[in-house]
Amino acid sequence: MKRTLGTCYYPEHWPQEIWDEDATRMAEAGLTWVRIGEFSWSKLEPSPEELCWDWLDQSIESLGSKGLKVVLGTPTATPPRWMTERHPDMFAVDENGHVRGFGSRRHYCFSHQGYFAESQRITRLMAERYGANPHVAAWQTDNEYGCHDTVVSYSDAAGYAFQTWLQQTFSGDIEALNRAWGNVFWSMEYRSFSEVGLPNLTVTEPNPAHVLAFKRFSSDQAVAFNRAQVDIIKEYSQAPVAHNYMGRVTDFDHFKVGSDLEIASWDSYPLGFLEDRAGATVAEQQKFSRQGDPDFQALHHDLYRAVGRGRWWVMEQQPGPVNWAPYNPSPLPGMVRLWTWEAFAHGAEAVCYFRWRQAPFAQEQLHAGMLRPDSQDAPAIVEARQVAKELQEAQDVQPAQADVAIMFDYDADWAWSTQPHGAGLSYFGLILDYYKALRRAGLTIDILPPDRRDFSGYRMVLVPGMMHVPDDLKTALADCSAEVLLGPRTGARDQHFNMPTTPLPPAFPNFDVTVSRLESFRPDLPRPLVGGGAAIRYQEELESGAEVVLRSEAGAKVAVRSGRLMYCGSWLDAEGMDRLIAIAAEAAGLALRMLPEGVRTRRTATEEFWFNHCAEPVETEVGLIQAAGVVRRPI
Amino acid sequence: MKRTLGTCYYPEHWPQEIWDEDATRMAEAGLTWVRIGEFSWSKLEPSPEELCWDWLDQSIESLGSKGLKVVLGTPTATPPRWMTERHPDMFAVDENGHVRGFGSRRHYCFSHQGYFAESQRITRLMAERYGANPHVAAWQTDNEYGCHDTVVSYSDAAGYAFQTWLQQTFSGDIEALNRAWGNVFWSMEYRSFSEVGLPNLTVTEPNPAHVLAFKRFSSDQAVAFNRAQVDIIKEYSQAPVAHNYMGRVTDFDHFKVGSDLEIASWDSYPLGFLEDRAGATVAEQQKFSRQGDPDFQALHHDLYRAVGRGRWWVMEQQPGPVNWAPYNPSPLPGMVRLWTWEAFAHGAEAVCYFRWRQAPFAQEQLHAGMLRPDSQDAPAIVEARQVAKELQEAQDVQPAQADVAIMFDYDADWAWSTQPHGAGLSYFGLILDYYKALRRAGLTIDILPPDRRDFSGYRMVLVPGMMHVPDDLKTALADCSAEVLLGPRTGARDQHFNMPTTPLPPAFPNFDVTVSRLESFRPDLPRPLVGGGAAIRYQEELESGAEVVLRSEAGAKVAVRSGRLMYCGSWLDAEGMDRLIAIAAEAAGLALRMLPEGVRTRRTATEEFWFNHCAEPVETEVGLIQAAGVVRRPI
Amino acid sequence: MKRTLGTCYYPEHWPQEIWDEDATRMAEAGLTWVRIGEFSWSKLEPSPEELCWDWLDQSIESLGSKGLKVVLGTPTATPPRWMTERHPDMFAVDENGHVRGFGSRRHYCFSHQGYFAESQRITRLMAERYGANPHVAAWQTDNEYGCHDTVVSYSDAAGYAFQTWLQQTFSGDIEALNRAWGNVFWSMEYRSFSEVGLPNLTVTEPNPAHVLAFKRFSSDQAVAFNRAQVDIIKEYSQAPVAHNYMGRVTDFDHFKVGSDLEIASWDSYPLGFLEDRAGATVAEQQKFSRQGDPDFQALHHDLYRAVGRGRWWVMEQQPGPVNWAPYNPSPLPGMVRLWTWEAFAHGAEAVCYFRWRQAPFAQEQLHAGMLRPDSQDAPAIVEARQVAKELQEAQDVQPAQADVAIMFDYDADWAWSTQPHGAGLSYFGLILDYYKALRRAGLTIDILPPDRRDFSGYRMVLVPGMMHVPDDLKTALADCSAEVLLGPRTGARDQHFNMPTTPLPPAFPNFDVTVSRLESFRPDLPRPLVGGGAAIRYQEELESGAEVVLRSEAGAKVAVRSGRLMYCGSWLDAEGMDRLIAIAAEAAGLALRMLPEGVRTRRTATEEFWFNHCAEPVETEVGLIQAAGVVRRPI
Repeated sequence: MKRTLGTCYYPEHWPQEIWDEDATRMAEAGLTWVRIGEFSWSKLEPSPEELCWDWLDQSIESLGSKGLKVVLGTPTATPPRWMTERHPDMFAVDENGHVRGFGSRRHYCFSHQGYFAESQRITRLMAERYGANPHVAAWQTDNEYGCHDTVVSYSDAAGYAFQTWLQQTFSGDIEALNRAWGNVFWSMEYRSFSEVGLPNLTVTEPNPAHVLAFKRFSSDQAVAFNRAQVDIIKEYSQAPVAHNYMGRVTDFDHFKVGSDLEIASWDSYPLGFLEDRAGATVAEQQKFSRQGDPDFQALHHDLYRAVGRGRWWVMEQQPGPVNWAPYNPSPLPGMVRLWTWEAFAHGAEAVCYFRWRQAPFAQEQLHAGMLRPDSQDAPAIVEARQVAKELQEAQDVQPAQADVAIMFDYDADWAWSTQPHGAGLSYFGLILDYYKALRRAGLTIDILPPDRRDFSGYRMVLVPGMMHVPDDLKTALADCSAEVLLGPRTGARDQHFNMPTTPLPPAFPNFDVTVSRLESFRPDLPRPLVGGGAAIRYQEELESGAEVVLRSEAGAKVAVRSGRLMYCGSWLDAEGMDRLIAIAAEAAGLALRMLPEGVRTRRTATEEFWFNHCAEPVETEVGLIQAAGVVRRPI
Repeated sequence: MKRTLGTCYYPEHWPQEIWDEDATRMAEAGLTWVRIGEFSWSKLEPSPEELCWDWLDQSIESLGSKGLKVVLGTPTATPPRWMTERHPDMFAVDENGHVRGFGSRRHYCFSHQGYFAESQRITRLMAERYGANPHVAAWQTDNEYGCHDTVVSYSDAAGYAFQTWLQQTFSGDIEALNRAWGNVFWSMEYRSFSEVGLPNLTVTEPNPAHVLAFKRFSSDQAVAFNRAQVDIIKEYSQAPVAHNYMGRVTDFDHFKVGSDLEIASWDSYPLGFLEDRAGATVAEQQKFSRQGDPDFQALHHDLYRAVGRGRWWVMEQQPGPVNWAPYNPSPLPGMVRLWTWEAFAHGAEAVCYFRWRQAPFAQEQLHAGMLRPDSQDAPAIVEARQVAKELQEAQDVQPAQADVAIMFDYDADWAWSTQPHGAGLSYFGLILDYYKALRRAGLTIDILPPDRRDFSGYRMVLVPGMMHVPDDLKTALADCSAEVLLGPRTGARDQHFNMPTTPLPPAFPNFDVTVSRLESFRPDLPRPLVGGGAAIRYQEELESGAEVVLRSEAGAKVAVRSGRLMYCGSWLDAEGMDRLIAIAAEAAGLALRMLPEGVRTRRTATEEFWFNHCAEPVETEVGLIQAAGVVRRPI
Repeated sequence: MKRTLGTCYYPEHWPQEIWDEDATRMAEAGLTWVRIGEFSWSKLEPSPEELCWDWLDQSIESLGSKGLKVVLGTPTATPPRWMTERHPDMFAVDENGHVRGFGSRRHYCFSHQGYFAESQRITRLMAERYGANPHVAAWQTDNEYGCHDTVVSYSDAAGYAFQTWLQQTFSGDIEALNRAWGNVFWSMEYRSFSEVGLPNLTVTEPNPAHVLAFKRFSSDQAVAFNRAQVDIIKEYSQAPVAHNYMGRVTDFDHFKVGSDLEIASWDSYPLGFLEDRAGATVAEQQKFSRQGDPDFQALHHDLYRAVGRGRWWVMEQQPGPVNWAPYNPSPLPGMVRLWTWEAFAHGAEAVCYFRWRQAPFAQEQLHAGMLRPDSQDAPAIVEARQVAKELQEAQDVQPAQADVAIMFDYDADWAWSTQPHGAGLSYFGLILDYYKALRRAGLTIDILPPDRRDFSGYRMVLVPGMMHVPDDLKTALADCSAEVLLGPRTGARDQHFNMPTTPLPPAFPNFDVTVSRLESFRPDLPRPLVGGGAAIRYQEELESGAEVVLRSEAGAKVAVRSGRLMYCGSWLDAEGMDRLIAIAAEAAGLALRMLPEGVRTRRTATEEFWFNHCAEPVETEVGLIQAAGVVRRPI
């Protein structure tokens, strides 16, 4: 298949006279896809039940007539003002009990049944009208579930739905819930499900089992909301359905949403993310200010390849400065091309730039586009044209299974955030630290969903921080032929957030290691390892008769190994992490190549991509790579 | 005219037996003015409609009999407790929806019609009684509008009034509003004005056009509130009316309030401001800890000279430690005198010290006065006596138009705060940075209101950051004989906060410069200029065929010039700013003198004042100036 | 008497089958006391009026049969869920008006009369049943009053009760209140007590007299709540009654609660406290990360010895990592023993470890116990066994009055927090700084309650920061034979938070010193003293004809002395504090020994204890002391 490019377009923002010219310019730039419609509800239905399809009909026709394919979005992320009068209690409520009202977007609660039905209604109307339209080649449900912290809602609607969800989860047995949560602690026992409230506005921290259950429930509500739209679209259309996930939004289970969709996609804003969510140090933020974190996007690419079961896109690609981060610099020249090729190297089917033309009004007027607000070319379109040309000229990317896999579990992220134990500790951060270490060593990585049990073909599998590990996964990991790297906190909790005690974690078959106690500590007090590196911020005391592969200078067992299972009970600094990976890789027979800072590589079936994320040229084993440079090399 | 001194006095706080002695001591200290009454509503009307004038009659008589002139304040900043029972919904509501209740001051919403009428009622009662009193030589309306963030209120009253204001602004055409705000973006369109809410408690940022309109409305409400009082006072009194503005309170348009008043005045607390609002670096806070920022007060002096159309006072002058800043040190000996003379050098008619005697009770008991709580002299009165003597002995200050002017536009401040684009960027901060650079270069400056069109007599006019520049101002600037310095962001938006696109900003007549895109970036990543200095935090990419006067080391056009118009698209550091000013000054034929740190000068028609804000003597071209020293030199 | 050990136990968390074994292991470890019951309301009364005593009967029997003594806690800190339906408005309300609901603990408002009666009801039921039980050898009321900021509540119930409290305090005379609070300031006058609201949600700071009165009221409500339980227990039981106070919880008067109890006890978590409340610098947090602040616990020991009038315990002693601090490291080996011996050296009757077995569920599942969750020994039990053995073998600790005393006044803490004047200034912090200086000098200290008037036996008495000093205390201090050290802010306010003016503070008999003004200043601007050390953050300008014992380099009088009274008007840094203490000690004839960092000593009637809080051995005058080492030396 040929990788393709696209853009996000808002015909309703521009006079109809320029639609054809826009479409022509898109086609000429080498774009294939145009996503439209996802914020247009007030144009489609200006008043309740008053439908206006003409403009959308014409827009699709205009685009299609130029050979462009449309991704049509359901507009449910932006219900119109009149909707909020129909359903005055449809809003989400924040942790402090404040209603999150009309005036921007995502102003709805997933648990509100009235809005749920409205979402189905408008989806059906769109699917009916465009399900057979030849230009509508894909669908997008809603927009960026969870963006602006919108999965968890403390509304009354959520409260009632949570009680129902608990009743089902515990088969109507309130004593089962009390036992599972340990409610005897602090007299938190309930006599009926109707007594269970939401875990906010408590005097001190609520029961973590209560919190975790509420996060699971909240995720399930988002999954159900999405599934309801997908089911309707499927009635009318053969085209694949996607959703555009947002970077480091982890409060719903993307694998579960993804299982109802054909395509996973995500919205990649490397510079904004570097500032507001990549967890970069100040030195990294300075060094990569105009390039973005060298691993953050790659991790998401690999994640969404897993979520999409191989089919995934970048639905929105940053084309220039954005408007929403604390600081919003321009990308270094070449970075838009680099980001695009990086996505393709990781297997993306399509990369769409957000947005076609910078809007001169409303919230995102300082968000760059492929065109300037005056319709002149912006720098992004020039780099996009170059990629389009390169795509035409070069061979296609041939994805292949990687040698190394990391399991990613949204539930574990909720468990960590429920009880991080030390300031700044998070599951996502742990995964990212492992991922970075693997990438520094030149490895190509797959992300695996938590229900994966078949590890054949992998030489190394990492399952760090997965708080609850089902027994069959333990068995599968213990039995597989890969080198398996566990910990910290892998297997630390049962399914209801209780600590297993017989025996203590991690309790893997035939692996003599027990976490006898654990500590968190100040980041400025690293605990050196014998031989280099250090444990930082978090350390488990391990009891083990197994081989000690990393030991602290104070004598503690930091990582132990038994057969192909290795367990590391500490959060390691970069040097320690590099050593840990090296030990596992050696056992797995994987050759490592330590890459220069900012240089990353990814291997496909036929070639190796090299990316230089630095602002200056870097000498590598494949020669000097220019700043923001991309090198493809056959293998 | 003779410059005069005064104080702020609360006779209702002290036993009547000491009033005469207080008045005698005031007169002996050389004071002319005594402001009273502005917080005394509960003494004037202890119960609804029960008026008690006796004490105020006697206090005015006591002061007047010693030759003192009274500034009488309307007491509307502190409605009594009973008022809040009459009008239980009179309170302002904060952004989170919390009612800002009784128990301190400024507990009212400008949009509440019931309280608006009460404010008129008490004003009329006072004006009726004292309008012809010979000792009442001036009036003050209310107290420090906007202090404690009290202009913007999210109450129901504000909500309804905002809808009415919008209906008038858009002539009843809701589609005009939808177009003007770009509400098509995110389906934010309204079908009627009654659907428009307040821009708080939204899920993510609201439409900036919505926010800016609400700020303009909020300012107008304050203007109307003030005007209603002034209109009543004018019915009964010939005395001038003032209001005492607070430092760096920018959320209502002081020029509009000022246009209804004869005198502008402001409350100058240099040490408190250094800590909590001057934007000083830690090094500056350390160096000027007991002196205050060397430019912050001067900027306000120049601003209020403009607001008062030449007539302005310092209504409250810090006399010693205050109680409300994070840290509250004592002024360096001599600073009270320096501050007073600095105000006179900038043209103040009067400087009044706040307060006469330190109160030993309630909120401000740790706020120094001219007297200690035990009625002994505090240091301030000693320095005031010295100034009074100096005023008697020396010639009067002779104000003159400056060579250099900066335009100040409250609306631009709201526009920047609505969309700063980068953390820490503000219009006020930009103006202060320009002002500081001009002062470092030894210049004397005027501030101009945004409706000024006549620039005759000025050799340099600066209009940085004025987001919306009306066409007639563009023409006036392009046509005037001064060197005109624009940018960054000058002309960046139309009147409804849309970005002009045909052409892109700044779009000045006959000036070939276009902002093709813009970025904000980390303050720790300065971008060096060729020849010294750097762009910091914010940079526009300029397309221009005009002469490049500043260029970045990376090759970007930082400032360009065409004829007498210059545009700088970056926020510059101090060195860069000095170079920019030097270039403009040279073109304007202005000689610059770079002053030592902490030394500032101001020129009048006949002389030059020199002020040393340092804690140690500094050698200057007019000789050694002592710490906190003031030098007057004929020119 | 023999000092004893104990633990906190939750039989309701564990299967009944292991209760006997638990009891056996407790006894074998050398424990004497077992505290139970304080969170078990939902097990005692699963539904309203449905009482279940059997399990508690059996648990007490199980423990008692092994020779253990029970401390029985009333369960009122954790009312069950059904209680909150009976009394839907029983919750406390926070400063922002948010209800602090069910789901954790301490979810009640002290002012709610319905819950007050429920608290009495359950207390009576327990006391009736167990008052004569031979194994119940002590009682505990509720649990950690004030933990999680639960003393001050802004509920309606608190509002009404506050009005009643004020009516009583001011004998029904609202004008007396207006005068006392200075309500004339800002027109805050009330016409009746029913007009007085709570001091939250005001526009700017409320009247400090209002705030202080509300804090006093809130404390009184906690005192009354506790007293009601004690009165009932006393009807049925001869056993002593205790409460377990929490570290640095100062928002109710522990002396007043303590006066109703036989025993004071507190909950000592040195590592958690170092991170979240000891006020340690980052360097100290690093150095003592696994040991805790060397003085913070000792200060509380001395405080609770005073609160308990000699009888005091550590009711909860940290045994390993806790779960609630920003970082939760393991104690250094030996520290559990050191903490225990330190408590005994300060006179504790008993030290109980919290908790017996680490719970694998609910909020505290990462809080260590004496046993691991799998019932294996955790490190704490090993150190406890060692202490038990040492207690058996060695002589008992013989408490004695110290040479030096510091007066501690909760009311002063409220006054400082009401008006700190400078960021970071607090009464508790001042006391701790003085205490640390005394300890660095090798002194043994008593804490005295604010109503103490007899100072015989003391050679030095410190009364720093006591904002309101009653006249009879002034006389008692002026007349006593000890060296008396006052200031800063000692005597700075009258009983209603007004500043005395005739004369100005401190106004001690026959002591010519007056605070003529005061300042706070940046912590990074220390003001050096002649001879070493500096004033930091806060300085009073002193007028005095008395001997100047410390003077600033700028010439200010920092500390003055007249006879045995000394007044220091500044907050001093450690070096300055050491010099101040040395001056006072010399006058008192006390020999000082400057101890190495982290080493502390305490003297009893017969011996001297030495403790090394460092992570490495330290050489001292009694020889090398190991890390975490304890040395007993006869004197």
